[in-house]
Amino acid sequence: MHEGKGPGRAGMMDEEGTLMMGKMIIAVEGIEECRVFAALVPEVRTNLVYAREHARTREDVLAVDGRITVVGGRPRAAGWVKFGASSHMARLILELMKADPSLRAGIDFAWTPVLSRWLEQYCRERGWTYSVIDRRGEPEEIREAEGASMPWKVAEAVRAAGGKAPKIFYETGAIGKEPVTVLVGRDPIEVADQACEIARKYHGAG
Amino acid sequence: MHEGKGPGRAGMMDEEGTLMMGKMIIAVEGIEECRVFAALVPEVRTNLVYAREHARTREDVLAVDGRITVVGGRPRAAGWVKFGASSHMARLILELMKADPSLRAGIDFAWTPVLSRWLEQYCRERGWTYSVIDRRGEPEEIREAEGASMPWKVAEAVRAAGGKAPKIFYETGAIGKEPVTVLVGRDPIEVADQACEIARKYHGAG
Amino acid sequence: MHEGKGPGRAGMMDEEGTLMMGKMIIAVEGIEECRVFAALVPEVRTNLVYAREHARTREDVLAVDGRITVVGGRPRAAGWVKFGASSHMARLILELMKADPSLRAGIDFAWTPVLSRWLEQYCRERGWTYSVIDRRGEPEEIREAEGASMPWKVAEAVRAAGGKAPKIFYETGAIGKEPVTVLVGRDPIEVADQACEIARKYHGAG
Amino acid sequence: MHEGKGPGRAGMMDEEGTLMMGKMIIAVEGIEECRVFAALVPEVRTNLVYAREHARTREDVLAVDGRITVVGGRPRAAGWVKFGASSHMARLILELMKADPSLRAGIDFAWTPVLSRWLEQYCRERGWTYSVIDRRGEPEEIREAEGASMPWKVAEAVRAAGGKAPKIFYETGAIGKEPVTVLVGRDPIEVADQACEIARKYHGAG
Repeated sequence: MHEGKGPGRAGMMDEEGTLMMGKMIIAVEGIEECRVFAALVPEVRTNLVYAREHARTREDVLAVDGRITVVGGRPRAAGWVKFGASSHMARLILELMKADPSLRAGIDFAWTPVLSRWLEQYCRERGWTYSVIDRRGEPEEIREAEGASMPWKVAEAVRAAGGKAPKIFYETGAIGKEPVTVLVGRDPIEVADQACEIARKYHGAG
Repeated sequence: MHEGKGPGRAGMMDEEGTLMMGKMIIAVEGIEECRVFAALVPEVRTNLVYAREHARTREDVLAVDGRITVVGGRPRAAGWVKFGASSHMARLILELMKADPSLRAGIDFAWTPVLSRWLEQYCRERGWTYSVIDRRGEPEEIREAEGASMPWKVAEAVRAAGGKAPKIFYETGAIGKEPVTVLVGRDPIEVADQACEIARKYHGAG
Repeated sequence: MHEGKGPGRAGMMDEEGTLMMGKMIIAVEGIEECRVFAALVPEVRTNLVYAREHARTREDVLAVDGRITVVGGRPRAAGWVKFGASSHMARLILELMKADPSLRAGIDFAWTPVLSRWLEQYCRERGWTYSVIDRRGEPEEIREAEGASMPWKVAEAVRAAGGKAPKIFYETGAIGKEPVTVLVGRDPIEVADQACEIARKYHGAG
Repeated sequence: MHEGKGPGRAGMMDEEGTLMMGKMIIAVEGIEECRVFAALVPEVRTNLVYAREHARTREDVLAVDGRITVVGGRPRAAGWVKFGASSHMARLILELMKADPSLRAGIDFAWTPVLSRWLEQYCRERGWTYSVIDRRGEPEEIREAEGASMPWKVAEAVRAAGGKAPKIFYETGAIGKEPVTVLVGRDPIEVADQACEIARKYHGAG
């Protein structure tokens, strides 16, 4: 079969990848049905990522092609789920897995000062760690070196969480960068479920 | 969490369902990338189904919500993959599984007399059984009884194949019914792969 | 600019075509929001067509690329609106315009005996003509000549309506052909509006 | 017909709105077919807006619902074109129309220092004004007053262009804000055409 054409490649998908794909689809359908989550989709749109057990590159990370946007007031995945479809969120989860290899899934959503105060309380009630990446502390040589920011940022989130990977964290705004909240977990269904519940509780619908 | 809203139900998905979902997505993406398959999408559009191991009702069968249509000259799934999203193809695969429980996946595509002659030869070369449901033989009392046609049709396809479930079959046109070809197999990736290869070979692109 | 690439062709669109495009989009969005219409989408899916004032070929007729299917229980256009995107419905409206050039738009939806009796009454109340194409009367030489059926069918619908173009008509089922109801009018917004109202009234929601 | 349901509202669309809708669809299809434009879609996604002649609020401005994202490496509109579907770009074009009422359409795309230098030269060759909004000059009382930034920003772009509305402009990055380039014009087809040509020339494909 011709390279890159038809389901030939698909036939080579291993069982781990297939099972991951199934979980992602279930998770994405869940987000699409969670209408109130639309209010938490940031300007840069939401992505949901899921990394293989021993993931090393972004090609080992599933994500939504085109991200999740808002159409007709509802969350809508723009395309299918694919390995390699995310850059930023994929690199973030890969880096975080170095601190805790069980954290293979993540979702990002909007951040505002009001939501942040609410989330701090919400996390406290659940015993979840809520952390922050304060980019004002980022050394200039790191900021300017291509690809150096992500390791620093994740290390900072872990450090601010007292040495362990946090459940939820955000980074303070930077020049040209929208601040977003990130929630991580073991699998994308759990992560989508938790993000949807946050949207419901925060908007008083739950 | 409210019933039927958000990813709550998703959290209850079992491992068999999740793995099936993954295979379906891989299969559907494969069909979407198989451009030439667009020429084989029938008026009623294509569906791809995949039944659970001990499937009994259409709720046990995965299918593409809204079927696979043609947009911009390419096959395009109209919606996501869902359990219960198909009626006709789901009932067909459920019935066929009574003859051979390993045949859990199926896809339908166009039928023309020219394609049919070509497929007969194609199946012969592969040692595949190519069968037909000749609806002129359908007893009137069956045709008129609600839900009685499918068991008769599948029994007829098996009978015409010499007593075993065929790999490919079609039914002759009937009043109000477009004739379609059906290809079945063990899993949707295999089935999508084989349907794509037929499209390529038939259109001389392979 | 390269042929067939980018908006170059678009820049050549005339004012009639642009205005038609606008009406079609408004009409399609209306159908998508008319949830109950999903119950009237036939197996072959619905299309909505709109012909130029002096249309001669299907390239003069706008239609929905990929037709209107049902996703998540709602009508959903599979693709954008394009000139030349329909074959069957385009040829039908072109033929009907020969009898009445003001009838430039049409939509097709499901047909059942029960809906048909209801529509007969519905049309009577509105002073609309409800007609039928009885394919049993089609001469064999026409049925077998490529492209000869459509002129015969439209002539038959006009004849059965007493010599004028009907507002709504259907054709009796034929071998391999699903029976569908067709509603026609001056522009696609009117036609979508009327089809949606039929769906609402028929399903008792209006 | 029920408020906000079905094509009822659509029936009330005036001729200006309908013609605008048609132009927008043609423009959006053009962007979708301009594959290389995918490389210029920013993190916040692209939108295309088109304001009524005497537009006053964002409800008078057409935009793509869900913006234009990238799926399978191609630009893809996430939803349909709707009045009121944009906030930021709508307010921008409304403000700019105060300086030049003929500038009713606009599109935003990525900004990088390298593209910016290239655009400066590109604009010079065409006699187009290329302007900048340097947010470092924004008075603090404006930055903090809700809704006050947009008038200041547009006034700044006009001032930096020597007192007239520029053809293309960008704003320097700010905390939490991705820098984007904005191209404006009389109608969305022209604007989509020009944005596509920039993508082609910049990526050396033209």
